[in-house]
Amino acid sequence: MESRAVRPYEAIRRKRDGLALEPDELRAFFEGYAGGEVGDYQMAAFLMAVHYRGLSGAELDALVDVMLHSGVVLSRGTAPPARVDKHSTGGVGDKVSLVLAPLVASLGVAVPMMSGRGLGHTGGTADKLEAIPGFRASLDPRAFQAQIDRVGCALAVQTDEIAPLDRRLYALRDVTATVESIPLIAASIMSKKLAEGLHALVLDVKQGNGAFIPEPDRARELARTMIRIGAAHGVEVLARLTAMDRPLGWAVGNALEVEESIFALRGEGPPDLLEVTLVLAADMLVLGGVAADERSARAAAERALRDGRALEKLRAVIDAQGGNAAVVDDPAILPQAPVRTTVVAGAAGRVTAMDVRAIGAAAVELGVGRSKLDDVIDPAVGFHITVKPGDEVAAGEPLATVFASNAGTAATAARRLLGAIRISSRTEPAASPLPLIGDRIAAHHPADAAAADAAAAASAT
Amino acid sequence: MESRAVRPYEAIRRKRDGLALEPDELRAFFEGYAGGEVGDYQMAAFLMAVHYRGLSGAELDALVDVMLHSGVVLSRGTAPPARVDKHSTGGVGDKVSLVLAPLVASLGVAVPMMSGRGLGHTGGTADKLEAIPGFRASLDPRAFQAQIDRVGCALAVQTDEIAPLDRRLYALRDVTATVESIPLIAASIMSKKLAEGLHALVLDVKQGNGAFIPEPDRARELARTMIRIGAAHGVEVLARLTAMDRPLGWAVGNALEVEESIFALRGEGPPDLLEVTLVLAADMLVLGGVAADERSARAAAERALRDGRALEKLRAVIDAQGGNAAVVDDPAILPQAPVRTTVVAGAAGRVTAMDVRAIGAAAVELGVGRSKLDDVIDPAVGFHITVKPGDEVAAGEPLATVFASNAGTAATAARRLLGAIRISSRTEPAASPLPLIGDRIAAHHPADAAAADAAAAASAT
Repeated sequence: MESRAVRPYEAIRRKRDGLALEPDELRAFFEGYAGGEVGDYQMAAFLMAVHYRGLSGAELDALVDVMLHSGVVLSRGTAPPARVDKHSTGGVGDKVSLVLAPLVASLGVAVPMMSGRGLGHTGGTADKLEAIPGFRASLDPRAFQAQIDRVGCALAVQTDEIAPLDRRLYALRDVTATVESIPLIAASIMSKKLAEGLHALVLDVKQGNGAFIPEPDRARELARTMIRIGAAHGVEVLARLTAMDRPLGWAVGNALEVEESIFALRGEGPPDLLEVTLVLAADMLVLGGVAADERSARAAAERALRDGRALEKLRAVIDAQGGNAAVVDDPAILPQAPVRTTVVAGAAGRVTAMDVRAIGAAAVELGVGRSKLDDVIDPAVGFHITVKPGDEVAAGEPLATVFASNAGTAATAARRLLGAIRISSRTEPAASPLPLIGDRIAAHHPADAAAADAAAAASAT
Repeated sequence: MESRAVRPYEAIRRKRDGLALEPDELRAFFEGYAGGEVGDYQMAAFLMAVHYRGLSGAELDALVDVMLHSGVVLSRGTAPPARVDKHSTGGVGDKVSLVLAPLVASLGVAVPMMSGRGLGHTGGTADKLEAIPGFRASLDPRAFQAQIDRVGCALAVQTDEIAPLDRRLYALRDVTATVESIPLIAASIMSKKLAEGLHALVLDVKQGNGAFIPEPDRARELARTMIRIGAAHGVEVLARLTAMDRPLGWAVGNALEVEESIFALRGEGPPDLLEVTLVLAADMLVLGGVAADERSARAAAERALRDGRALEKLRAVIDAQGGNAAVVDDPAILPQAPVRTTVVAGAAGRVTAMDVRAIGAAAVELGVGRSKLDDVIDPAVGFHITVKPGDEVAAGEPLATVFASNAGTAATAARRLLGAIRISSRTEPAASPLPLIGDRIAAHHPADAAAADAAAAASAT
């Protein structure tokens, strides 16, 4: 069929000029790339044109479809339980998945959670879990599926079998400055999430200076774009905007975040972490059909934290993935940093702002994450930051603890951390921090879907 | 020096976001590409960003400089004669170079003219000259320079020694839909022209439906951009906008255009060809310092046509490049097409428009040019079109002659040609054709140069 032939030049030209491609044309272009007939240079030019011109709803659906079916797609099956996952756009101290997944699974919704490694200034769930001695984050699709059937929850990294075309495209985008395009971000996330065989998905879209997409408008657009993709693939998607103008919880660092998550599963964690987790849990439980409404869902989740069911589910997951499950009773099993330094306020005042990106970067430099793919992570290091914007502090009052492998890195990290926490005199008016839980974005109605479609089509930088 | 290091990602990102690169940064990016450290995919993404964001004057100068010095650059020397060339953006029947170069050279200005092969719907000067038995259009830079010194004129193709980086970039642009960017077009042309070691350059920028850039605004912008580049490299550039809403002259085809050029050098060619040639010749003679003003320059050029000096210069050029120079006395030496078909008007009326692009495409299909790089040209075939927009024609009156290799291709070409010449009833108001000679664009003054710079920086599709 002539009309389906790969004409890379024509596809690039049309996109460049802002004309929508026929879904078959776009599909042929990306399949041609997967098959080697379309060169990296042609894809790079196309992706840059997408950066400026966006993708229409139909183009987006075709793209996600090609990416999704470039690899293994798990079946959602026909019998209960429903399969519901959560995806976060990533933030500093965001260990919600470690608490949320076992919590929701303990209430009868299957949580088949695959995630990426930490990148840039934020950490990855798999990296955190691997702080637990013996824990295997890499599961092949069969083992992953078997664990979902048996335990109701698996927390794994995306392996090469899942959406390999997304992996290739991401590597190309990463070296051609085409990462920051909303439709490409949405397609990348959704192609991997849809491969999990979901019934529904909750998105935690971070806002604020520590978010990958700090601008609220673009964060909303990303949410709507992903909702649209979900709808086209029969997956209900609900998004929550949450605050990332400060780290979430207190701990930043792999073992430290596992420890904090275990406390949270006992109902003892930092209030902001608990609140975000409960809101998202309620959404997942409602979408999973085990609760009638948000209120009863939240009550059920609170009970599961209180009565230990959620913690027991984490124990089962760790055990199933080869980790030392005794950690849930004794977090001291986790790697411990030899050096601990307390960071104190130099003068009295109020915490008016936190540079979350700088805190994340300081953590990465300390060994929490990778700035390059082959950097080695130190699971024991990180921060415990106990102040939040709005808090008043006295001179000499502790703000945070640095956990480091030696005194040198500890001192550097302490200095950077102090530089990222702005303390102003008490008389200066404090900038209001973002609400912890922001907008709820859903598109149940065709009109909303059409609006999301239009937004996706109009999307540009 | 850290600031000069190649950071391809950063260069792409800055261009993507509309930030100007430091000249050294842009230089490092393109030198990195030449050296293999910057990938084709990164260059493709960068070029697509340039399509949207343009290039600042300083960026453009740096780019031209890198492209120019990627190959051999001829010296313009210190002694007279001045070296002046003409570049045309290309059109159907545009054989001006064949008449202009020997004419100007016969009056004491050296014309070191290198050009490309025919591409798309227009022919190339080298392809035309190669219709002359024995003519060698490929000269290495030393032979080219020696001929300039001895004959004062050479008409050659750009060899691999000239701006090889432009050749690589053009090949990449050609498959990534990044050809149509004004600054990239200007940089490509000027890097090759500056390699000729010029003192001055006259641009023939075509306007109208047969031009590569049909929009007058963009054609002007291209002219201004090239003037700006010339100024930055110490070469005075002057541009003329000329009409390409009809073919130039009557002949379209390689041997046919050589024949028409020989007639023009005797002062006997079609009036429009003679007029464009004389206007450009006068510009070149003034820029070359052998005439005080346009009027005396034109008078000198008219004399050189009348007294045979211009024709003798063509004879010398053909002889120097191995061709059978007797062709200037007997054009019948040129290859002759076996089939000739006359195209006549179906009904009386007025020629109101000509689809020049369609005429060019019909000529290419007949064998005049190449639609692919390895297509073989038939030097004998083509059209002789004797009507122009505005002409009244009677039913059955000849409009054109098709020269073909067989009756089948002749019939197809005749049909296409007829379809490309619009004849309306005499009562219908005729659309006015473009003026043959349009604006003259020059930038002698800093204010003009600044305006051209601003235009170049703002350039986008």
